[in-house]
Amino acid sequence: MLAVEDAHRLVLEQCQPLPPERTPTAPAALGRPLAEAVACDLDVPAFTKSLMDGYAIRAADGGPLTVIEEVTAGRVPTKTVGRGQATRIMTGAPLPEGADAVVPVESCRADGDRVEIAGPPPAPGDNVLPRGREMRKCEVILSPGALLTPQALGVLSTCGRAVVLTGRPPRVAVTATGDELVEPSAAPGPGQVRNSNAPMLLAQAAAAGGLARDLGIARDTAESLRAAVREGLRTADVLILSGGVSAGKLDLVPGILREEGVVAHFHKVRLKPGKPLFFGTAERDGGRRLVFGLPGNPVSSFVCFELFVRPAIRRLGGHAEVDLPAVSARLGAHFTYSSDRPTYHPAELMLAPEGWRARAIPWFGSADLRAFLAANALLVLPPGGGALPAGAAVQALRLEA
Amino acid sequence: MLAVEDAHRLVLEQCQPLPPERTPTAPAALGRPLAEAVACDLDVPAFTKSLMDGYAIRAADGGPLTVIEEVTAGRVPTKTVGRGQATRIMTGAPLPEGADAVVPVESCRADGDRVEIAGPPPAPGDNVLPRGREMRKCEVILSPGALLTPQALGVLSTCGRAVVLTGRPPRVAVTATGDELVEPSAAPGPGQVRNSNAPMLLAQAAAAGGLARDLGIARDTAESLRAAVREGLRTADVLILSGGVSAGKLDLVPGILREEGVVAHFHKVRLKPGKPLFFGTAERDGGRRLVFGLPGNPVSSFVCFELFVRPAIRRLGGHAEVDLPAVSARLGAHFTYSSDRPTYHPAELMLAPEGWRARAIPWFGSADLRAFLAANALLVLPPGGGALPAGAAVQALRLEA
Repeated sequence: MLAVEDAHRLVLEQCQPLPPERTPTAPAALGRPLAEAVACDLDVPAFTKSLMDGYAIRAADGGPLTVIEEVTAGRVPTKTVGRGQATRIMTGAPLPEGADAVVPVESCRADGDRVEIAGPPPAPGDNVLPRGREMRKCEVILSPGALLTPQALGVLSTCGRAVVLTGRPPRVAVTATGDELVEPSAAPGPGQVRNSNAPMLLAQAAAAGGLARDLGIARDTAESLRAAVREGLRTADVLILSGGVSAGKLDLVPGILREEGVVAHFHKVRLKPGKPLFFGTAERDGGRRLVFGLPGNPVSSFVCFELFVRPAIRRLGGHAEVDLPAVSARLGAHFTYSSDRPTYHPAELMLAPEGWRARAIPWFGSADLRAFLAANALLVLPPGGGALPAGAAVQALRLEA
Repeated sequence: MLAVEDAHRLVLEQCQPLPPERTPTAPAALGRPLAEAVACDLDVPAFTKSLMDGYAIRAADGGPLTVIEEVTAGRVPTKTVGRGQATRIMTGAPLPEGADAVVPVESCRADGDRVEIAGPPPAPGDNVLPRGREMRKCEVILSPGALLTPQALGVLSTCGRAVVLTGRPPRVAVTATGDELVEPSAAPGPGQVRNSNAPMLLAQAAAAGGLARDLGIARDTAESLRAAVREGLRTADVLILSGGVSAGKLDLVPGILREEGVVAHFHKVRLKPGKPLFFGTAERDGGRRLVFGLPGNPVSSFVCFELFVRPAIRRLGGHAEVDLPAVSARLGAHFTYSSDRPTYHPAELMLAPEGWRARAIPWFGSADLRAFLAANALLVLPPGGGALPAGAAVQALRLEA
């Protein structure tokens, strides 16, 4: 059976970043990756400016000075500061010709148009920000792939950019399949269960940076499944079929996918929880569609999304980092598990003074989504099982908050 | 001058969570805090069910069995499994009366309506999920304040909730003030600078969970500032005036705020970068408005937002965790700083095997937003300055990704 690493590689091999799109900087571009190199179109600051409210002077001048002008931010000085002269200046205003320092107003004694420096003698450059100190004209400030944080959006604005090229968030369609499913707001009848996977997967897709859309519940009939598959392939970059790969449906779903032009890349992966996991691709309207068939068990669905679908969504969206961040941790307590496959176990990671500490959350298996409420990580456990003592080194994947 | 801790306390004293609102679970409620206790309205699972595709049997039975029925998910068994009998069952289908275990199809040899167990003899309960194993009817599953992760939204759906009470995201209005400002898309004239603070603050507000709205640039006139203040107090829970507290405007802004009914709580805090920082409150339409006057320097604005405005937005939004997460780290390299105030220095935190390692990012002061591009944390440095050797223990506040 396919190893997790190989399945992961096969998925990413099919993922190319979508064509970038022009996006207004704030707040629309927040959290997206930049898809162009951005250079500043001017020196920043564009003029040598005062960092304080005070007096622009010649640092070499000692005695009382005559105030010749006042400059506020947004205005420009009209007079050159000569020997024995000063210009009253506000924070952010351009330093006048002739001046080479600013003395803060708190360090001055002013009397009419006369001012005296009360504090220590100033040095050239004091409280002055020289032109081009932060950025030089034409210098590349941000590179493709840079994550657009609030501070990056501020810097882009300084560079004159109100619109930038960013990765395009992939459209993700989710359909839960199964005759047993009812909507969460309904009371399940005998043998029925509520559809909890679709809301969870829609939220996971949104958290991964996708534009998530619910296609509703598909029933276990060729007509219903085909309609969902067609709608998904027509409108989305990524189609997720939840519960479409259980053995009872294996007669139906692969045939429909084949008919719709979906090429299967794999349908089983060696992991717990998970195992049945379909991945295929189709070409539509000049673009590649990714199709994931996730197991119907909520936890299998959750874990398979984080390991395989999330990286795909992020790669399509142009992100450089696509996988859950991996950390090394130590077990806080003794922990025993049994599994014949590589296992992803819900865990709570805490930062202790000596590093990450992990607590394995009691969990009875792939139907136990409740155990994941307190989880902020997945422990990555090798196949074979065993008893791990307190303090044992483990690998963990951090889930996003 | 007011200490950071005291200013922080004064801000939070004025913050009460806004009245919660009814929110569709997915994906609208993602990332919000739950504002009610949620109990499950039924046992989960509501019926004892099969965890595998296989045969429902009596574990005590040994020999060949007669298949009496087939049950798929969503259907209900109609026959009781007697001695020597089996029901073909699919994953998720209810276990028929009489049966106490499921043997996976891979461990069986079937021939017409006869089936034989090929693997090890089953034990009662094998591959069966008993009714109520995950949740009991009326049991409280999620408590107020719980962060709505994808898995929590899945669990809420299982509990029958398509709509839940969540914290309400506060409306945050941002206005940048200053005659020197031009829009980012414009070419600045002599003495002018682009408005980079508003895009940054809008993104910070959105990242903190607020509904951010740009009120545009206010000019340094009573009319323009008054219009922005009125509009902000009328339409938002939090009004941010960027650059409204520099000395050059101190004649204007406090008077206007007073006239509009804003009570000042403080206007200076002992920190670097920052210092001038106004905080006030006003009552409007039966609700409390918070007013922050942030320094015009981009870095001061950024840091003051993270330290004081973000906690306010998150508290109003009903979050339990309101502050940036604090971590202990070790300096990766020798670092010298000088400051007479508690200082928040841009830093890059990396996870080393032994814990967090911090790199102080070269930074020339509050005009240098560019230094924050690589920052994912703020080093918290005590006043006085000094030389910190490589390996020195430091405190850091992690910025959100």
